[in-house]
Amino acid sequence: MVEVKFEQISPADFFYRNRDIAGFSSPARSIYMSIRELVENSLDACEIGKILPEISVELSSEGEVGNSGTEIYRLIVRDNGIGVDGDYIPKAFGTVLYGSKYGFKQSRGTFGVGGTMALLYGQITTNRAFKIISSRGGQKIYEYEMMIDIVNNTPRIINKKAQDNKNGWRGTIIDFTLEADYSTSKSKIIEYLKMTALINPHASISFIDPKGRFYFFGRVTDQVPEPPKEAKPHPQGVDSETVSRIASDTRARTVLRMIIEEFQRVGGKTALEILKNANIDPDTKPSELTHEQIASLVSAMRSYQGFRAPDTGSLSPVGVSFLEAGVKSLLKPDFYHIVQRPPTSYSGIPFIVEVAIAWGGAIEPSEEIHLWRFANKIPLLYDERADVSWKVVSERIDWAAYKVPKIAPLSVITSICSPKIPYKTVGKEAVADRPEIERELTLAIRECARHLRLYLSKLEKREAAKKRLNIYAKYLPKIARFSSELADQKPPDIMPLLKRLGITDDMLAEAAKLESEEEQLPQTPAA
Amino acid sequence: MVEVKFEQISPADFFYRNRDIAGFSSPARSIYMSIRELVENSLDACEIGKILPEISVELSSEGEVGNSGTEIYRLIVRDNGIGVDGDYIPKAFGTVLYGSKYGFKQSRGTFGVGGTMALLYGQITTNRAFKIISSRGGQKIYEYEMMIDIVNNTPRIINKKAQDNKNGWRGTIIDFTLEADYSTSKSKIIEYLKMTALINPHASISFIDPKGRFYFFGRVTDQVPEPPKEAKPHPQGVDSETVSRIASDTRARTVLRMIIEEFQRVGGKTALEILKNANIDPDTKPSELTHEQIASLVSAMRSYQGFRAPDTGSLSPVGVSFLEAGVKSLLKPDFYHIVQRPPTSYSGIPFIVEVAIAWGGAIEPSEEIHLWRFANKIPLLYDERADVSWKVVSERIDWAAYKVPKIAPLSVITSICSPKIPYKTVGKEAVADRPEIERELTLAIRECARHLRLYLSKLEKREAAKKRLNIYAKYLPKIARFSSELADQKPPDIMPLLKRLGITDDMLAEAAKLESEEEQLPQTPAA
Repeated sequence: MVEVKFEQISPADFFYRNRDIAGFSSPARSIYMSIRELVENSLDACEIGKILPEISVELSSEGEVGNSGTEIYRLIVRDNGIGVDGDYIPKAFGTVLYGSKYGFKQSRGTFGVGGTMALLYGQITTNRAFKIISSRGGQKIYEYEMMIDIVNNTPRIINKKAQDNKNGWRGTIIDFTLEADYSTSKSKIIEYLKMTALINPHASISFIDPKGRFYFFGRVTDQVPEPPKEAKPHPQGVDSETVSRIASDTRARTVLRMIIEEFQRVGGKTALEILKNANIDPDTKPSELTHEQIASLVSAMRSYQGFRAPDTGSLSPVGVSFLEAGVKSLLKPDFYHIVQRPPTSYSGIPFIVEVAIAWGGAIEPSEEIHLWRFANKIPLLYDERADVSWKVVSERIDWAAYKVPKIAPLSVITSICSPKIPYKTVGKEAVADRPEIERELTLAIRECARHLRLYLSKLEKREAAKKRLNIYAKYLPKIARFSSELADQKPPDIMPLLKRLGITDDMLAEAAKLESEEEQLPQTPAA
Repeated sequence: MVEVKFEQISPADFFYRNRDIAGFSSPARSIYMSIRELVENSLDACEIGKILPEISVELSSEGEVGNSGTEIYRLIVRDNGIGVDGDYIPKAFGTVLYGSKYGFKQSRGTFGVGGTMALLYGQITTNRAFKIISSRGGQKIYEYEMMIDIVNNTPRIINKKAQDNKNGWRGTIIDFTLEADYSTSKSKIIEYLKMTALINPHASISFIDPKGRFYFFGRVTDQVPEPPKEAKPHPQGVDSETVSRIASDTRARTVLRMIIEEFQRVGGKTALEILKNANIDPDTKPSELTHEQIASLVSAMRSYQGFRAPDTGSLSPVGVSFLEAGVKSLLKPDFYHIVQRPPTSYSGIPFIVEVAIAWGGAIEPSEEIHLWRFANKIPLLYDERADVSWKVVSERIDWAAYKVPKIAPLSVITSICSPKIPYKTVGKEAVADRPEIERELTLAIRECARHLRLYLSKLEKREAAKKRLNIYAKYLPKIARFSSELADQKPPDIMPLLKRLGITDDMLAEAAKLESEEEQLPQTPAA
């Protein structure tokens, strides 16, 4: 008989063995991922404290690795975020799947994986410890040198100290080495920082690259966005696991109170109706709900039609006026239209889709539509083709029906915000095609496209009218002149007629000019 | 000061919260994923025991879910694989990241996630227990009814029994319910099973769909492939974590012996050279290697140029003759070429790339090249655009240089086998663009494309020659006749000349026929 050995591996080991699924698949991509994960953690650490972010990224070379084309880099990311308490630093940076409490709250970093994964990648490629310096602005600044024990998913502290925080500094500094390929990833990194600054106008982001070049993306507004609030789950589309957990954690004494208190947008009447549909006594203790009861409660919630839309308080969309400013500054389009869809939800998780369509201006005509994707105010630059936005833009929309020619100067910008973006990969590059999100994107893009069609129709009509009028402007005066000459009469004043047709003096002048040029043409060879 | 709560979550909880990254993003995709994960586990369970696989998949409806368009399905997958020992069943099916020992061995299921994820998905959508029945062919058949405690990542046994195994049955039956959308995913499921059977000709796979339709993909060969062997890591491109683990686990007494025994393809001379480059005493005890020494050992291994290619014994590629049979039966092409690249490695992990290019026949001409992807003998049907093969086919190859027109009847089939395929997602749909794999694919496709160019050139020449000869065939006899009439001579026998030019009797007959038709044409209107 074949012997089969079984084993359990730790989450750190899982990501170590499968780093491609966290986006660390090549030396080029890994440096991009490291910068982005740490910058996003920094933005979150500022947002939660209503702090205007000051983030600096510094990358310097420590020499080439053999003849592999890659180099060892030192990466330092500094922020002025809320900082991490000394006691928490080891686990927060040295353990995978450990992080600030998950919850129904919109944030950029979502997996408890990204930041630690960057450090883990640095460790396995350079075998050096990493350094974390942080303070919450209190009396001490904590400094740790650590490595990750991958097999056990625990931090291994090599050195630690606490210094007096004389100047009341607050923030976090992450300092580590990694093997990477900057030259290949440079353009993506710069684009990432630029787009991130664009969509986070309250942030100041600087970057020093290995050649000492300094990039600065300054703050545009001093207004700090409201930090997204933690939201209760919306009852439409929750699953039995969520309801089971709520039932065992709730302080509510009855299932009726539980539904009212632990879910958003549910009043007493609705709760009673749901419980009646689920055939559950409203006075049942939540902890005493059977599996079958939870299953029927879930299906009663899912099939109930009368819920109010999810609470938007927990969502922090980009906003129409801000998208407008971004689109204008980036694309300088001849036409644009922006749609913010009302909030809705998938699997109990609220989300808002915003879409902008832009035409002309700085947009290069192309056979392929230019797609820009944002999710929770971060740009998504890789794996475009795997994203739900690409699917909608390329498969769901019949662009010809909106008068869009095959080669067109067209950009589509999509932005999704949600306490949980359903990414396909831990590398957070492509959003999964959840049917609810696909639907919202389709509706929003269609609405934009309808406005685009109106614009293009008008343009078309204007062109056609202009052509027609140009002909009138050219020939009516002639006809008037010829016919009056034939009749031996003084030419009539055709100006009122021309005016009535909408022909302006400019057009007449242009027609006359064109005419005289045309008449001169045949003479040229003879001259 | 902002209060921040931290928490550690279990791997099961991680995948529960982020099921999109395991491919369970929609009711349609989830049923596809469930079937494929379980079928792949079954194929692995047969391969490891050198068993001819008999796999049956049965899907039946248990009624609609509200008005959501989805249904509750019961999915039963049966195999005749090696089975799972009773004691291991709970953890093997009720724990995430627990599975048959990971290792450098080629297999279809790679994450210790897929099968459990399908059961977890069924549990959270239907809140029902799942049933596992298994026997290794011994005296007992074990039957468990279980659920997964997601918070703790542990199995929760609801019922278990052991029955006498009177008939010596061996295999595994998985029986559970899940909420899904079969009608949308039907075509992908059938395509998946068809392609899987094609690439695993020794397997017999049957499928009964919810309407009772029976699909059968029968066994084509009785030859069981050699089960892939576990391989030692190849020293080129290992990282410090791997070397650290080896150093602490090895039974070797010296670092010299460790390098020879624990890595593949390293002899004494090479090992000594590496240690000299790393500046490490060959007699050092492995357990006493410092971090710095491990780091320099790793870089000495990486920059060493003299290693032999990785051992292929651990790899089980599809094989040229089998790819040929598959390509012929599926595409019936006018031309094909198959390349199997020599084994090489990325990050110490060996892999082999095989590529087939096919032209014409049953292949529809299209602006887009038809790409078929396989990895470790399973078809990859989703997320094509995110795959390294797509990147190579669409970006790395200048098809025009190989005489391929814009619209062409062209298929590219890629197959990668490796003890560890670097998937981008836990859903195993897209292979990451590891530079080494990208390079091998590019080389293989280029080689195929060169043969295609030769074929297309020949085709072109033959066409041109045929055109030219057609002209000769048509005019030479005439010229001969006219000139002899002018000279009042008997027409010469031009047949030897025509023969020498390569003009056949058929061509002459065709030319004569065309001629007489052409001559009749002008008369038609007058008639």
